[in-house]
Amino acid sequence: MTDFSELKAILDERRVSSGESVRHLHSHDESFHAPSLPDVVVWPHTTEEASRLVRWAREKRVPVTAWGAGTSLEGNPIPVRGGMVMDFNEMNRIIAVRPEDFQADVQAGVIYKELNKRLARDGLFFPPDPGAAATIGGMIGNNASGIRSVRYGATKDYVMRLTVVLPDGEVIHAGNRARKSSSGYNLPALFTGSEGTLGIITEATLKLAGLPVNFMAVRATFPTVLNATTTVYQIMRAGLAPAAMEFLDANVVRVLNADRDLTLEENPTLLMEFSGYSRQGLAEEMAFVEEICQQNGALSIDRGIGAEERARLWEIRHQTYESIKRYHTGLSPLIMDVAVPLSRYSEMVDFSKNEVRDLTAYLFGHAGDGNIHVHVMDDPQDAKRWARVEEATRSIVMKALEFEGTCTGEHGIGIGKSRFMETEHGASLMLMKRLKALLDPENLFNPGKFFL
Amino acid sequence: MTDFSELKAILDERRVSSGESVRHLHSHDESFHAPSLPDVVVWPHTTEEASRLVRWAREKRVPVTAWGAGTSLEGNPIPVRGGMVMDFNEMNRIIAVRPEDFQADVQAGVIYKELNKRLARDGLFFPPDPGAAATIGGMIGNNASGIRSVRYGATKDYVMRLTVVLPDGEVIHAGNRARKSSSGYNLPALFTGSEGTLGIITEATLKLAGLPVNFMAVRATFPTVLNATTTVYQIMRAGLAPAAMEFLDANVVRVLNADRDLTLEENPTLLMEFSGYSRQGLAEEMAFVEEICQQNGALSIDRGIGAEERARLWEIRHQTYESIKRYHTGLSPLIMDVAVPLSRYSEMVDFSKNEVRDLTAYLFGHAGDGNIHVHVMDDPQDAKRWARVEEATRSIVMKALEFEGTCTGEHGIGIGKSRFMETEHGASLMLMKRLKALLDPENLFNPGKFFL
Repeated sequence: MTDFSELKAILDERRVSSGESVRHLHSHDESFHAPSLPDVVVWPHTTEEASRLVRWAREKRVPVTAWGAGTSLEGNPIPVRGGMVMDFNEMNRIIAVRPEDFQADVQAGVIYKELNKRLARDGLFFPPDPGAAATIGGMIGNNASGIRSVRYGATKDYVMRLTVVLPDGEVIHAGNRARKSSSGYNLPALFTGSEGTLGIITEATLKLAGLPVNFMAVRATFPTVLNATTTVYQIMRAGLAPAAMEFLDANVVRVLNADRDLTLEENPTLLMEFSGYSRQGLAEEMAFVEEICQQNGALSIDRGIGAEERARLWEIRHQTYESIKRYHTGLSPLIMDVAVPLSRYSEMVDFSKNEVRDLTAYLFGHAGDGNIHVHVMDDPQDAKRWARVEEATRSIVMKALEFEGTCTGEHGIGIGKSRFMETEHGASLMLMKRLKALLDPENLFNPGKFFL
Repeated sequence: MTDFSELKAILDERRVSSGESVRHLHSHDESFHAPSLPDVVVWPHTTEEASRLVRWAREKRVPVTAWGAGTSLEGNPIPVRGGMVMDFNEMNRIIAVRPEDFQADVQAGVIYKELNKRLARDGLFFPPDPGAAATIGGMIGNNASGIRSVRYGATKDYVMRLTVVLPDGEVIHAGNRARKSSSGYNLPALFTGSEGTLGIITEATLKLAGLPVNFMAVRATFPTVLNATTTVYQIMRAGLAPAAMEFLDANVVRVLNADRDLTLEENPTLLMEFSGYSRQGLAEEMAFVEEICQQNGALSIDRGIGAEERARLWEIRHQTYESIKRYHTGLSPLIMDVAVPLSRYSEMVDFSKNEVRDLTAYLFGHAGDGNIHVHVMDDPQDAKRWARVEEATRSIVMKALEFEGTCTGEHGIGIGKSRFMETEHGASLMLMKRLKALLDPENLFNPGKFFL
């Protein structure tokens, strides 16, 4: 038996716990995946402590899983083989903000919304916006993105430099602070999206963007899903550059109305945001956007210029996930996350809708990126019904791969998507396995993820 | 002795050559680095042929170096250990353009300017713009960028999917066609910028951008370098989003005037481009840019809106490299390529200028990205003088690293920068070496680069 009390020689007692409730809190994320208890939870304060914990775990052959906020949607941080969960919530310092360089240095446990509050003072922001109370470390681990990636890209586009603890306990600093570099292998990109299977990220230098001066937002509703998705495509093709372009199916609006006492038109809906320097320029863009919406049979168009108008039109989108969950208390969510080339988006939405027609399912997603979330609410304990949910997942993923897309646009592989890795990656999967074996030959870093 | 005539069993005779002039053509790039002759040059037409050639080379322990257009500036494709050069110029087909997805599939030998000609028909372009007749394969190998990376990023930001021949001859397809993905390790990012040391890229799916509807360009000159670089910083901080932001020192303008019979003001100069949907919006931005320039003591401001005005103002920048070369016929160029955080740009330019004050040196660069090129013209045969050039290089790189920047913003490591890898990457360099040893244990892919 491993004696976890030895860890108290590395961290003070308060930061090592095998208590029931602590272990329970670190046994599940926001997904339906079965909980799994860690043996011990530790809270490092420094990279050096994290490194010492990893060296200890390696010596004892104890699995190590990094933990941010537990808001993942695919079981990514569930310690399926027990062992040590390394919780970064006490390593949550914004080390430095350098407005003059459009950069910030943060510890892994910083919550991105907290970072953005701090950055607003300097007219800056960190664009990836997954919506939950995610930590920067978790976002880097999953390569999170969210509603603004159509314009701003994903987390990987904002990682300049990382401090990483490797599975042998060694600490490396990868990357630099220049806005561009062609120096050596792109190690920050290798660790970003690796879900803690190759290394544990303790600190990061992030690239930031300037907060736009002006905003314009549009909410348009359409008679059919096809009208809405065709509008997405035409706006993207017209050379307009939306900062966000979201699709909500009619029943999603219905739940939002019910949950939040709203009276929105219950039709397939697009939410769009544009931003820029000139109000006049935005007004011109808005007129063009409206024209495209009308050509596609828009039933209603609500729009406005300015930060308040944007906040009004966008509020509903930020509540989608919570509203659906509240509306179906007692059921668990399975959220599919396929992404396909833009030209296939209409077809993908249509196919998905048909596949889940006999389930309690909501379709919404980051349309400008070809990313669709099929949000199914059901009971994982009901084997027959859940088998039906899994069957729909499989056929939707297979269709996305047939379209040369991906099984996950932003939620990561975690537990639920590992069964699609071989189909999606083919011979590349073998190279991924070789990289994993090189860095983590004992398979101790977040084992049971990525690879079946 | 290796019998290279065996290769004629893989390719038809015409596509295997050990002729003197062919070998000579593949012995050097555009840099000052000493030429080195390959033993044989081959021209594959398919990925499968490339794979068979690699398998043959592996069996015979023959080095393999991929070759695009030979326009590198750091010796990147020079076959320093002889062996086989794999020239991709006959693998130069644009396989598919999918305007509806903002994507193109190309073979590695496609010249990016040819690709952009084809894409213009559909209102699209591939943004990285290194300026020479570079091939897509070479640009991916070096993670090339150029004048528009301040807005559009580098080649790495446009690589969606790669076909790669690994050093054991296996072919993998890495990545997918969705605009975003969190599926598995980011293999396209690992190969991009690896300069053919981990794998040889034969095909790529590239992300494209929409050609902007309107352009605005400004050329402003200043009394001092500091006035110019301060302007760069203030424009970036003001929330304006230049599509290009170039600095040219006064003596660069002097050479351009002499070489091209122009009458431009011979002062430190900024060339800026802005683009967007609305002409009115651009006019507003232009007024703001002009105001910032004036506050920094601008001596002259030439500006205009529209594609023709842009072409007029930008023509000179595209000729910089060629003009300097013509002006100093008989001398060789060493072009430094450090990049630093924006706030250090003024200091970096100042320091560099002082370091090369006794040399024939020109300063210009992608100021919006903190990237400065110090272009020295001298004679590598003159040992004493060249030692002085190398000494200046070292002290400029060391200063950039002290500023937490990089020894190369866009030219790559090649031969000339390998001596700085340890200082720049520290413990990360060991991980890079382990990755190299994993994929290429015999060190046959572009040996003698990256690692000393």
